[in-house]
Amino acid sequence: MKRIALLTSGGDAPGMNAAVRSVVRVGYVKGVEVVGVYHGYQGLLTKDFHIMLPRDVSGILERGGTILKTSRDIAFKEEKNQWKAIENMKEEGIDGLIVIGGNGSQTGNLSLFKKGFPTIGIASTIDNDLWGTDYTIGFDTAVNTAINAIDKIRDTAESHNLTFIVEVMGRNAGFIAIDAGIAGGADIILVPEIKFSVEKIVDNIKRDMEKRKLHYIIVCAEGAIHARDLEKEIHKYVDIDTRVAVLGHIQRGGSPSRFDRMLASELGERAVNALLEGEKGKVVGIKHNRIVLIPVQDAVMNKKQLNTKLYKLAEELSV
Amino acid sequence: MKRIALLTSGGDAPGMNAAVRSVVRVGYVKGVEVVGVYHGYQGLLTKDFHIMLPRDVSGILERGGTILKTSRDIAFKEEKNQWKAIENMKEEGIDGLIVIGGNGSQTGNLSLFKKGFPTIGIASTIDNDLWGTDYTIGFDTAVNTAINAIDKIRDTAESHNLTFIVEVMGRNAGFIAIDAGIAGGADIILVPEIKFSVEKIVDNIKRDMEKRKLHYIIVCAEGAIHARDLEKEIHKYVDIDTRVAVLGHIQRGGSPSRFDRMLASELGERAVNALLEGEKGKVVGIKHNRIVLIPVQDAVMNKKQLNTKLYKLAEELSV
Amino acid sequence: MKRIALLTSGGDAPGMNAAVRSVVRVGYVKGVEVVGVYHGYQGLLTKDFHIMLPRDVSGILERGGTILKTSRDIAFKEEKNQWKAIENMKEEGIDGLIVIGGNGSQTGNLSLFKKGFPTIGIASTIDNDLWGTDYTIGFDTAVNTAINAIDKIRDTAESHNLTFIVEVMGRNAGFIAIDAGIAGGADIILVPEIKFSVEKIVDNIKRDMEKRKLHYIIVCAEGAIHARDLEKEIHKYVDIDTRVAVLGHIQRGGSPSRFDRMLASELGERAVNALLEGEKGKVVGIKHNRIVLIPVQDAVMNKKQLNTKLYKLAEELSV
Amino acid sequence: MKRIALLTSGGDAPGMNAAVRSVVRVGYVKGVEVVGVYHGYQGLLTKDFHIMLPRDVSGILERGGTILKTSRDIAFKEEKNQWKAIENMKEEGIDGLIVIGGNGSQTGNLSLFKKGFPTIGIASTIDNDLWGTDYTIGFDTAVNTAINAIDKIRDTAESHNLTFIVEVMGRNAGFIAIDAGIAGGADIILVPEIKFSVEKIVDNIKRDMEKRKLHYIIVCAEGAIHARDLEKEIHKYVDIDTRVAVLGHIQRGGSPSRFDRMLASELGERAVNALLEGEKGKVVGIKHNRIVLIPVQDAVMNKKQLNTKLYKLAEELSV
Repeated sequence: MKRIALLTSGGDAPGMNAAVRSVVRVGYVKGVEVVGVYHGYQGLLTKDFHIMLPRDVSGILERGGTILKTSRDIAFKEEKNQWKAIENMKEEGIDGLIVIGGNGSQTGNLSLFKKGFPTIGIASTIDNDLWGTDYTIGFDTAVNTAINAIDKIRDTAESHNLTFIVEVMGRNAGFIAIDAGIAGGADIILVPEIKFSVEKIVDNIKRDMEKRKLHYIIVCAEGAIHARDLEKEIHKYVDIDTRVAVLGHIQRGGSPSRFDRMLASELGERAVNALLEGEKGKVVGIKHNRIVLIPVQDAVMNKKQLNTKLYKLAEELSV
Repeated sequence: MKRIALLTSGGDAPGMNAAVRSVVRVGYVKGVEVVGVYHGYQGLLTKDFHIMLPRDVSGILERGGTILKTSRDIAFKEEKNQWKAIENMKEEGIDGLIVIGGNGSQTGNLSLFKKGFPTIGIASTIDNDLWGTDYTIGFDTAVNTAINAIDKIRDTAESHNLTFIVEVMGRNAGFIAIDAGIAGGADIILVPEIKFSVEKIVDNIKRDMEKRKLHYIIVCAEGAIHARDLEKEIHKYVDIDTRVAVLGHIQRGGSPSRFDRMLASELGERAVNALLEGEKGKVVGIKHNRIVLIPVQDAVMNKKQLNTKLYKLAEELSV
Repeated sequence: MKRIALLTSGGDAPGMNAAVRSVVRVGYVKGVEVVGVYHGYQGLLTKDFHIMLPRDVSGILERGGTILKTSRDIAFKEEKNQWKAIENMKEEGIDGLIVIGGNGSQTGNLSLFKKGFPTIGIASTIDNDLWGTDYTIGFDTAVNTAINAIDKIRDTAESHNLTFIVEVMGRNAGFIAIDAGIAGGADIILVPEIKFSVEKIVDNIKRDMEKRKLHYIIVCAEGAIHARDLEKEIHKYVDIDTRVAVLGHIQRGGSPSRFDRMLASELGERAVNALLEGEKGKVVGIKHNRIVLIPVQDAVMNKKQLNTKLYKLAEELSV
Repeated sequence: MKRIALLTSGGDAPGMNAAVRSVVRVGYVKGVEVVGVYHGYQGLLTKDFHIMLPRDVSGILERGGTILKTSRDIAFKEEKNQWKAIENMKEEGIDGLIVIGGNGSQTGNLSLFKKGFPTIGIASTIDNDLWGTDYTIGFDTAVNTAINAIDKIRDTAESHNLTFIVEVMGRNAGFIAIDAGIAGGADIILVPEIKFSVEKIVDNIKRDMEKRKLHYIIVCAEGAIHARDLEKEIHKYVDIDTRVAVLGHIQRGGSPSRFDRMLASELGERAVNALLEGEKGKVVGIKHNRIVLIPVQDAVMNKKQLNTKLYKLAEELSV
């Protein structure tokens, strides 16, 4: 293997640049030329190819977003486009592809692998909802941003004795919500995976208020219920002073944390080595604190389960 | 003057605690007993009074919110409640009051002053919309929080080539928006004080896109237009990929900046000294980089003007 | 078990408060009274005991340091003091002890356990040098602080084309240095565990400068060599412009990260449950991403090994 | 005036890039070509000239350091080099120069102005020791960094009941120390401008310890006394547990604050307009919250006085 392509795809995540840097530099050390593909899978079709050398990735380790740009490609679901991508790569002498991204992005990885092209994925999404890996690049930073925001919000909640409903990202999964809730000291956490009753929530609030709790913080994943809707629901039962905060896109950006810079650096190295060892159709992730290769089919087809022990812990901590 | 009361009122702002600390400690040094009143003006009615000594304000300089708690008091607009407050203070031997807060809060200051009670206000609101002072405690931190958020958002805007509409606080005034816009590198800034046309905004976006600008950031004050509404309006004219971020309450909390800690420390000291010098019915603020006393009537009745030079500068910088 | 004591010992670490909160609240839920012991082991001798209820640990999750205070106790190494501590606890009906701290602190744990008193430790030190656990509470935050500092230093290094020598904590172990170095993008990392030659370092610098590297960052653990000494050594070989930055105590404080808040919350819960299940003479840690109990004798007697793979990765990334 | 040169000189400061961006973009709007000079005055001699367009300064507003690089030029003190610089600029059709920097850098400005070349300076140094301006670009961010560090250090000071001596930058001036001390809640502040006695400091510490103060923070400017030396001095009088923290270069870097981004944006605009209006031999600064032009001779020759009121305030606040 002499030349490999590298792209970032789907939602950007802090640490993607650290992974790009790792692939480029480790590739260089191992004698492989790394070709950066801009704008995700779309760049495979338009041949938006750029050779990357170690100095081209200077000063990006600490930066959020992705210098390779990214996109969410619907067009790439078409078979003919996938063949076109492979053709384009082969024309340029590229004999391997590394895909940095989450679930949707690794589906593209799977498609190309099924057509016989050697691919390796790097697990990266702030949502942490990729099967087979305990963590994905970007999750730690996103939750750190969320808890810093909750820390600020608590200042106001305490000063006014208010109930705050904080909506965090997570359309299908509660990973961000659970960690942001526990680490942010939330009194109640709502996730898409676990049913809840607004009546019970209101009962909890009332009961807790009697225990000298003067302010109250509810963290909900957007996929569980929208904060604004929950507020309306609560007001059907009880007349308390509430405020809503939708954290939104700030969770996606920012300089990556230690955790994400380390994970990205390690996964990038493993991805290059995996390709060189002849591995293909895999996603590089971390399991039980060890770097692992996950069959991309498994990673994409299975649904990652929430750690329900954490949910129970959250309840105990909000006593 | 032997005993003075101190309260925080209205929306909490970073630096209120620093001002509380300054009043308590300078009061102590000057031989005045400071009585902390909890929950704003409401505490004057319920006699929620607590004597405060220098050690009681240890470790609060760096904390957002207000340890004295705050409230937005509608009841206090009634004359009889104002008389009751004065009576309550006199009963406890309190012969002066310091009110930390913004426009609404200083209206209470004015009411008590008009009834003959010695009052001094300390200008504090994140909105910076108090007449007679160049800055209010909390504004600098709030804008720093906003620009850090915009910095993160730009990571995503750049990675995906997106247009972002970022809504900041400011129901009646554009001070946060102007500074967050300029310091956040916004391409367009919308404030309540200046009319705008969505058509022109769209023209600007189109024109700028031709100039190699691949992403775009619009900062709007909530009082100019809600981000969600602006997004809908823009989509009537042009089909571009947009995202909305409503920064909301995170702007209100957090550890105060140098600027706000210094301002709070200085205004707190001046407020105590002003009362001791026999001043009353004033608000302490900063004008032309000097600590000044503003007649509370002027502070409350006049509308602070936006610096339109900054608006012009913003246009030049977004070229 | 009806009553357990809880103390923090040794150097403070961000997340200790989160662990205190977890022990107190989980204890409360499980029907155990938690007695906070102030000033570490010293408080066991002076009976500095305070019953802690869930509201007593409100608002500490996000705070650095330890509200229980801590100390480095030499006196506690004496057998008679250990017996005195046990006697004091028994007098107050305390039948278990939880010790939050690092290597030195868990030695006290071991001593009491050997004398028959039920003890459980919680792994917490910014140095991460406790055997049997992949991470200790405080390490993640400390490294995040270090890399934020290095990010700032790089601004100056880049602007002036300078070589910076950044000294991080780690008297006996290179864990902070390795992670801060990789995540901070250092060109060279020096740790106590691995020998190095200044001559080779100088050769590396010269070679790299030829590769368009205009600035240079060396991260050294204090236990490998002091930055100031390294600077002198380097200047014996080559006349380059260098600066020294000793990060020092800022690495120890600050609001804990997601990682440390989560780890502290989970370890706190496990510690309480372990005592209730009859476990003793153990330290709660995390291994392979699972909460584990480590025999305190093993934890204290063995030396934790540095991951040398990371050292190799660091070399590749600095190409 | 059709073409102006722009350079940054001396120590880098956060906000220099924001000023560069402002000069380039405002210049473009006003029809002036801006030529970036790399490596400060040295670049004038080597003709390290690069035309800068609005897109060349995209994404630098938020970055510390200076993309134009900087240097401390001793060679430029020679007359013949100054003539050479003017000759080089004239050869390239450059008829004006903007110098972003502090005291030393504006001395170069003065030399060129005296030789008849139109120059305008922009006040920028973290030390804030330039006469005629209340603030210089970089000071606010530097102090914010210092107080964040002190906030972290206080966590440890509180947890262990320690006395910390924190050394901040300021070889000849105490501006950083005064603001970092007050905003960081220091108990004692030492600056080069005001004499102090170690004996009195020790008396203060002893007296304060009796007032329930359990930890203690001293902030000293490096130009007043080195922290390590002060520690030794204190230990001659009293045996208390002390720690030293030298903040060093982290104060110089980092993303600029609102204050510095705004100040840089406004000073940059004013500098361009001043040159176009025919002004020369001036430094742009801010006085009484207004942008002003200061004769460069005055700026360079006079010594800026410390605000001694702040020193008194600091004493009262540390009661």
